[in-house]
Amino acid sequence: MKVPEEIVELIRREQYFTIASHINPEGDALGASLALALALRLLHKDVRVFNSDGVPYMYNFLPSSDLVETGMDRERLKNSVLIVLDCNDLERVGLKDVECKKIVVIDHHQTVTDFGHIRWIEPESPAAGLMIYNLIRELEVEINREMAVNLYTAIAVDTGTFRYENTTPEVLRAAAELVDAGVNPGEVSQRLYESWSVNKFRLFVSMLKTVEIVHTGNINSAIATITLDMFKETGADASDTENFINFPRMIESVDISAMFREVESGCWKASLRSKGNCDVSLIASHFGGGGHKNAAGYKVCGDIGDVKKGLIEAIHDSVAAR
Amino acid sequence: MKVPEEIVELIRREQYFTIASHINPEGDALGASLALALALRLLHKDVRVFNSDGVPYMYNFLPSSDLVETGMDRERLKNSVLIVLDCNDLERVGLKDVECKKIVVIDHHQTVTDFGHIRWIEPESPAAGLMIYNLIRELEVEINREMAVNLYTAIAVDTGTFRYENTTPEVLRAAAELVDAGVNPGEVSQRLYESWSVNKFRLFVSMLKTVEIVHTGNINSAIATITLDMFKETGADASDTENFINFPRMIESVDISAMFREVESGCWKASLRSKGNCDVSLIASHFGGGGHKNAAGYKVCGDIGDVKKGLIEAIHDSVAAR
Repeated sequence: MKVPEEIVELIRREQYFTIASHINPEGDALGASLALALALRLLHKDVRVFNSDGVPYMYNFLPSSDLVETGMDRERLKNSVLIVLDCNDLERVGLKDVECKKIVVIDHHQTVTDFGHIRWIEPESPAAGLMIYNLIRELEVEINREMAVNLYTAIAVDTGTFRYENTTPEVLRAAAELVDAGVNPGEVSQRLYESWSVNKFRLFVSMLKTVEIVHTGNINSAIATITLDMFKETGADASDTENFINFPRMIESVDISAMFREVESGCWKASLRSKGNCDVSLIASHFGGGGHKNAAGYKVCGDIGDVKKGLIEAIHDSVAAR
Repeated sequence: MKVPEEIVELIRREQYFTIASHINPEGDALGASLALALALRLLHKDVRVFNSDGVPYMYNFLPSSDLVETGMDRERLKNSVLIVLDCNDLERVGLKDVECKKIVVIDHHQTVTDFGHIRWIEPESPAAGLMIYNLIRELEVEINREMAVNLYTAIAVDTGTFRYENTTPEVLRAAAELVDAGVNPGEVSQRLYESWSVNKFRLFVSMLKTVEIVHTGNINSAIATITLDMFKETGADASDTENFINFPRMIESVDISAMFREVESGCWKASLRSKGNCDVSLIASHFGGGGHKNAAGYKVCGDIGDVKKGLIEAIHDSVAAR
């Protein structure tokens, strides 16, 4: 991974920076933002970290997470460099327009727009955190424990702590360096995977009870449902359902994991995950939704029975079309 | 980690080897055994791999797993070096006595016995696989893809793919080297974590439904039950329950996760897992069982209500004793 010289020079030259990441931020967006902010501070820069949704409860443990602001100081922004991190357009940042000195985009997601004055896009990088790790080294700032925990969390979240396909030798070596710099990997994992509330656990069990396994041609789908009543009964909320969809994937024979979450009475957010070559973005686009090959979603209203039937038919058609 | 010169010399000098690991083998025992066998073969040694329980279904993907034999050729053993791997006594290997040329013990578990002629014990090593990785390098054998997948699996299983406290910079760097040697980390993780049968999933959901959360002083315990009837209803078996006990640990407030599995009508195997400083070996020993601080177990017969009550009382006493 080659850090663009242009970005290094810009950072050395300028004084005012605002780092902004995407709405509904997860560990990569937040960890990468905070680590970069901490590094820029050591270079005596004036830095602000913006996220329109702020820091979710589970990421409060990130060092200096209190730096994240949900309001944008537009006056200050005029004279500052805006670094858009882990996304590549303003909509994902949750802003309509900005007036600033320069826009730098640093992202590992594939993109079709040309937003930003300087664009550093690495679709092969498992995490934005790995790009920032390399940038900080290029800036010759020594990575301290605070930065390391942020970067390690960023990397851990986007690689499923080294369980996903995107786990490269480079990201494992970076992780080793970050542990050398003071990260306790067991502690980070406990924060990421063992911090469920009892209510979330209750909702999880209720959700698992709804799982149906449906065979369509040679495709096996596990379909789960979460109704508004289930939220009420367990006391959990929508943010608790993140990651639930990955559990039915544990079943070897399951190709597609689908979850219908009721967002208002009779209307559902459908999330789809697939293994290997099974393309769920085609199925989602059939319903006006979108996503990637292995992760997609759409919104739909109707009786849950009909809604499920619709999905199964779409899976059937996509199998037939192959 | 320093590989004893004595072991390197012995391997160079001798011709016949038998590698034996513990009963109920998991990925570390099997992966480390197979990687070492493959390396010794490249050195033109005559090697056998013994495990009295053989290779569980889920580990069939390990390269050359068909090398594992469940019967011991005692005549051949007389003239061979016995390498006891990932354990440190004969009982754990499932043998009563052996007649061989020399016994080498290679293990990362703390030990109190002095079994074996050459003993290499590294309690600080996260996995036996990491010791074998270092031994193979010391033997100057190039690690090929087959060895790498075995070693990576060994390391992955014993570090929870880098989620446990024992994840060191060294083990992450070794993992990076193994990915360079041809391991696909996503594929290994899929084998380890996404290879459940539908029956196992059904039992998992049934088990989760039984989870009760009990408060004893300042200790929260999640107690789950698996009855013989549940096995019957779901078609799953005892080997499917491995790892189930870790799921209730996802709840932040849970200090102890306990699971009672009915082994014969009215008799139970109790497994205990704890977080942090909560010592469950004391509780297990109260019932004549044993284990480590964070993982222990015991056997008990009786009505499930009484058996649970007994556990809760023992937790209460252990809290009071602190």
